[in-house]
Amino acid sequence: MRPSGRAPDEMRAISIETHFTKHAEGSCLIGFGDTRVLVTASVEDRIPPWLRGKGEGWVTAEYSMLPRATHTRSQREAAKGKQSGRTQEIQRLIGRSLRSVVDLKKLGENQITIDCDVLQADGGTRTAAISGAWVALRLAVNGLLASGAIKEDPIIGRVAAVSCGIFKGTPVLDLDYIEDSDADADANFVLIEGGQIAEVQATAEGATYDEEGLLRLLRLARMGTDRIFAAQADAVK
Amino acid sequence: MRPSGRAPDEMRAISIETHFTKHAEGSCLIGFGDTRVLVTASVEDRIPPWLRGKGEGWVTAEYSMLPRATHTRSQREAAKGKQSGRTQEIQRLIGRSLRSVVDLKKLGENQITIDCDVLQADGGTRTAAISGAWVALRLAVNGLLASGAIKEDPIIGRVAAVSCGIFKGTPVLDLDYIEDSDADADANFVLIEGGQIAEVQATAEGATYDEEGLLRLLRLARMGTDRIFAAQADAVK
Amino acid sequence: MRPSGRAPDEMRAISIETHFTKHAEGSCLIGFGDTRVLVTASVEDRIPPWLRGKGEGWVTAEYSMLPRATHTRSQREAAKGKQSGRTQEIQRLIGRSLRSVVDLKKLGENQITIDCDVLQADGGTRTAAISGAWVALRLAVNGLLASGAIKEDPIIGRVAAVSCGIFKGTPVLDLDYIEDSDADADANFVLIEGGQIAEVQATAEGATYDEEGLLRLLRLARMGTDRIFAAQADAVK
Amino acid sequence: MRPSGRAPDEMRAISIETHFTKHAEGSCLIGFGDTRVLVTASVEDRIPPWLRGKGEGWVTAEYSMLPRATHTRSQREAAKGKQSGRTQEIQRLIGRSLRSVVDLKKLGENQITIDCDVLQADGGTRTAAISGAWVALRLAVNGLLASGAIKEDPIIGRVAAVSCGIFKGTPVLDLDYIEDSDADADANFVLIEGGQIAEVQATAEGATYDEEGLLRLLRLARMGTDRIFAAQADAVK
Amino acid sequence: MRPSGRAPDEMRAISIETHFTKHAEGSCLIGFGDTRVLVTASVEDRIPPWLRGKGEGWVTAEYSMLPRATHTRSQREAAKGKQSGRTQEIQRLIGRSLRSVVDLKKLGENQITIDCDVLQADGGTRTAAISGAWVALRLAVNGLLASGAIKEDPIIGRVAAVSCGIFKGTPVLDLDYIEDSDADADANFVLIEGGQIAEVQATAEGATYDEEGLLRLLRLARMGTDRIFAAQADAVK
Amino acid sequence: MRPSGRAPDEMRAISIETHFTKHAEGSCLIGFGDTRVLVTASVEDRIPPWLRGKGEGWVTAEYSMLPRATHTRSQREAAKGKQSGRTQEIQRLIGRSLRSVVDLKKLGENQITIDCDVLQADGGTRTAAISGAWVALRLAVNGLLASGAIKEDPIIGRVAAVSCGIFKGTPVLDLDYIEDSDADADANFVLIEGGQIAEVQATAEGATYDEEGLLRLLRLARMGTDRIFAAQADAVK
Repeated sequence: MRPSGRAPDEMRAISIETHFTKHAEGSCLIGFGDTRVLVTASVEDRIPPWLRGKGEGWVTAEYSMLPRATHTRSQREAAKGKQSGRTQEIQRLIGRSLRSVVDLKKLGENQITIDCDVLQADGGTRTAAISGAWVALRLAVNGLLASGAIKEDPIIGRVAAVSCGIFKGTPVLDLDYIEDSDADADANFVLIEGGQIAEVQATAEGATYDEEGLLRLLRLARMGTDRIFAAQADAVK
Repeated sequence: MRPSGRAPDEMRAISIETHFTKHAEGSCLIGFGDTRVLVTASVEDRIPPWLRGKGEGWVTAEYSMLPRATHTRSQREAAKGKQSGRTQEIQRLIGRSLRSVVDLKKLGENQITIDCDVLQADGGTRTAAISGAWVALRLAVNGLLASGAIKEDPIIGRVAAVSCGIFKGTPVLDLDYIEDSDADADANFVLIEGGQIAEVQATAEGATYDEEGLLRLLRLARMGTDRIFAAQADAVK
Repeated sequence: MRPSGRAPDEMRAISIETHFTKHAEGSCLIGFGDTRVLVTASVEDRIPPWLRGKGEGWVTAEYSMLPRATHTRSQREAAKGKQSGRTQEIQRLIGRSLRSVVDLKKLGENQITIDCDVLQADGGTRTAAISGAWVALRLAVNGLLASGAIKEDPIIGRVAAVSCGIFKGTPVLDLDYIEDSDADADANFVLIEGGQIAEVQATAEGATYDEEGLLRLLRLARMGTDRIFAAQADAVK
Repeated sequence: MRPSGRAPDEMRAISIETHFTKHAEGSCLIGFGDTRVLVTASVEDRIPPWLRGKGEGWVTAEYSMLPRATHTRSQREAAKGKQSGRTQEIQRLIGRSLRSVVDLKKLGENQITIDCDVLQADGGTRTAAISGAWVALRLAVNGLLASGAIKEDPIIGRVAAVSCGIFKGTPVLDLDYIEDSDADADANFVLIEGGQIAEVQATAEGATYDEEGLLRLLRLARMGTDRIFAAQADAVK
Repeated sequence: MRPSGRAPDEMRAISIETHFTKHAEGSCLIGFGDTRVLVTASVEDRIPPWLRGKGEGWVTAEYSMLPRATHTRSQREAAKGKQSGRTQEIQRLIGRSLRSVVDLKKLGENQITIDCDVLQADGGTRTAAISGAWVALRLAVNGLLASGAIKEDPIIGRVAAVSCGIFKGTPVLDLDYIEDSDADADANFVLIEGGQIAEVQATAEGATYDEEGLLRLLRLARMGTDRIFAAQADAVK
Repeated sequence: MRPSGRAPDEMRAISIETHFTKHAEGSCLIGFGDTRVLVTASVEDRIPPWLRGKGEGWVTAEYSMLPRATHTRSQREAAKGKQSGRTQEIQRLIGRSLRSVVDLKKLGENQITIDCDVLQADGGTRTAAISGAWVALRLAVNGLLASGAIKEDPIIGRVAAVSCGIFKGTPVLDLDYIEDSDADADANFVLIEGGQIAEVQATAEGATYDEEGLLRLLRLARMGTDRIFAAQADAVK
């Protein structure tokens, strides 16, 4: 039924290649099928002005698609002179998702900036970005702990994200581009290992869904994130 | 328990003053307690370039806060030279919410732009904006029908939005600014009269919630939107 | 003779509703007929860099029209990414007008920012804005005096503004939109109670006028501002 | 009494060097004392979108100061990425002033853009710009008439501008930078040969003036513009 | 003598992985040692406005560094809202270099946009970008020929680029970051297979060099580009 | 053979008028034939943030063309809101060229900004700008030495620039606009008196050249810069 031949509750292959670039304190290339996102975590010992004197750190994120990550070339945001609403929405989401599993006090006065650059897009770029961002963050924080820059681990748990949607009437997990273009409803779930919800963004443009529909998608999302948590654990071992 | 003395499932007073400005095809000043948003609907007989030749219309929205709508003055976005990520996120949400109850084919080659300008903010500006936007849209579409510009009513149903959150451990409806600043989790629900969900945006920065928590908020949201649907019906009678 | 049926030297109804918003230190909604401008005065205990160490304060203003304040929708300046020349010209004028009645030394190291947002436009938005700005400023300064933040009243007198023009050969006072669109010449006068001139901006695109014409407009302006001074006095009583 | 030793009603030396650059259809370097402005008029056989199909032309202007035209270097507007409010105000004034002496119908569907670039500033840059702009416009229109591109002369008369102000209590003509920095009030008059007023911009920041004061400045301005009209006539002979 | 232990005329390892992304008509990941640039070629059947009606095509390029491609994180250009002078200089250079080996008439009315995104930087990013750009272009043009969209091969020859410089007094080939930071002079050569020079950019900030020095660098560059031409040939076989 | 009738190795007339503006610490109007560039040098006793505490100074440059310096009017960069890639490329080149003859340590903590504004363009604007920039810099530094602000002369030698190209098969010196538009290859040489090369920018879009061709252009450039060095010496005597 699905164009890819997958079962409704089947994730695409998850690949995580850590240390993909050498300068960043943490980095990985994460793949959800053909969607590939390069994620780096940069540690800086300065914090945003509004945090000064609080003894806390900060975790923030930026997101971008390379112009030809997509089927047809999009204009480069640096050339247009501004980031789109979509880009800003996604990078704010990534930042919030990570902060839901970080104790900013234990991070000390350090800022970690996560850069998520989509090299190739095939649906689910924001969910792959969040899932990879946790890996890059984990590696960067490991470095801070190893060097003694911070004493206690500020990372409370794992966070991962996956999209679900209703495609031709059936709830499906981890939509690829073809499904995404044609889905009746589309939701992104950011979940924390152990069962808590960090964020839900469920959108139904044209179609809508009821409470039962939303819950069915949430259950699919739990199955998907369990797969991602395992891949994350494996990657940072 | 709530700073305002409201019961957990109690909305603030809803006020809708239609025809607040004289030039727009539809307009209202909507209030959720002290939050007041001026909403106008502007009809133009042109459509975005990517819709040309499809025989369809478009509904879109813009959102802004006046600089001193808030406790302390914010910099004017026109002076800064760009709209914030928050502004863009909200105006995209308003547009999608309205389109979930509009049959764009029946709208013909018309574009309706909804402007939501927050005159005074006390929490829930985006939900008041969506709820008022439906009223302004309804009035503008009534004009198109009355003038014979379109033949069939493109509006399928009512849409309204409300925020819910967990405040000091209790799920509460329609958070005001004091509650919002201190809530553990915060969700905006966009619901359609009759029970369908158009959009859920549930965010838990720091705290998180489980499935049961999300459902409890959704049920509160239904109670709130029922109140809003009644106020909308009353306003456009 | 005038489309509104007014006599040549007749102002439109002036309405001033103070404390229109609750957060600003001073605010009012001023109406000159159907022109309605929301004005807020925001006090901040910081001053522009070039005033540091002089022991003086500053008064400045920003101006904006809501997109659908006018007959047809204008593009939002925040979305365009810049303020128009017209906007900048008007907000500079409002700031200079207010400073002509303020002793900046007595204001201490405080900055007062006046925001003038046009909710509905029907000619004379800048003159209504200046006239309302004085009211918001007066209320904000009253607060500074009451709290003891400043000792002496920095406001020297009242300032108000009105437009005059030559419409179908006759000098008329307080042009509305229909007159303004069709006037041969158009002048904005900013006058100080007691007879002094703070600013004259007389423009004749296409037509021109002689010295006698200019004086006749100035005399009309005096009649109009006397009406406004009375309304201001009443509003802040 | 004046720092320059001039009499109160004495203009600075006026110099106009026509054809200062070779590419523009009209050009001059105009000097009011040490203030020197390079003005070019560029003719294009296209018009702004909003004039299409009306059979009319358009005259518009742009203004800029070279970064080191002034005592201390200002940041280049192209590097800052936007034109200041002052720049926009001035270029709008130049355009309106020229259009007050042009019959746009006789200009045909041509646009003339006047560029005024201040090479050296010593007070009165906008008035020198307007006065020189008329010369460049006259030369460009002469070319259109000579080539037969237009049949009738669209220029109705001469326009010139001069500043006047109250310096140490005395009304003076054509303020230089030292006077301008220290004047109590400052007015720019745009006058048309024969006595009509095109534009008055009288500003009194801090100080103010009465009707009699304004008239005294207007009379000085007439003396000044008579001198400029003679220099313009001489230049285009 | 060189920090990397290389001989003065020794290139770093060259790696070219073609078809690195699946959407672009041509793509490769090129490496000069640790410098890695992702290059895509996008074919569009539209041309810039100034080429319309000439029956020619166009080849252009854009360049960017990911924020953490470097030792310390740089601000993202899309977030800053503009491309730096360095970025613009490099992307103009890449475009000119490619056009030196393309017969634009044979390309037909097609535009090929080359995007060069630096994933990891270690000196020589612009020379790797140019060398990889030729590969992506070759692959994209092969597709146009295979599909019959164009009849004749518009690519005249191979183009490649390499940097040379004077490091601690010795002319060296293909500077890495450590050498580049400390070189007395630095030149980028864009050469065409067969011996012609497409572009030389030799800069000596602080130090300078004489004619003989320039020639010595040019000879090193020939050695380097011979290596690159071989790698290009191999990659597109 | 050349449109101007010049011999292949013949420069256009060089004119340098020093002290063209009165405010700048150094200034000149330089002409290479009909190309005329106004250059000013502004001294400020502050340095860029990244130089603080090093006891060094800085020399930087900005470049602009007046909108009607060219055959047809170009849009003003300040109005467009950004500097073109070409502008940025040129101003970076001017800055590097000057720094190649300045000992920044001897300059002390002073910044000299060179502004090059092209009043009239006829080919070679960047080379005239560099050649004139040295004159303005020399005059500004003379002032610093005369006032005792610095003790030792930081200027090591003279720097000048000239373009050469291959026009209808013949290498020619100092291309004017007609030649430049039609040249097969085009190179800008920045040379230091005494024989050293500061910068070479040789571009061959469409055509290319071999080593011998490059050397022939370099020899022409030496002849040209010798003429310019003499004119510079004469100007600052």
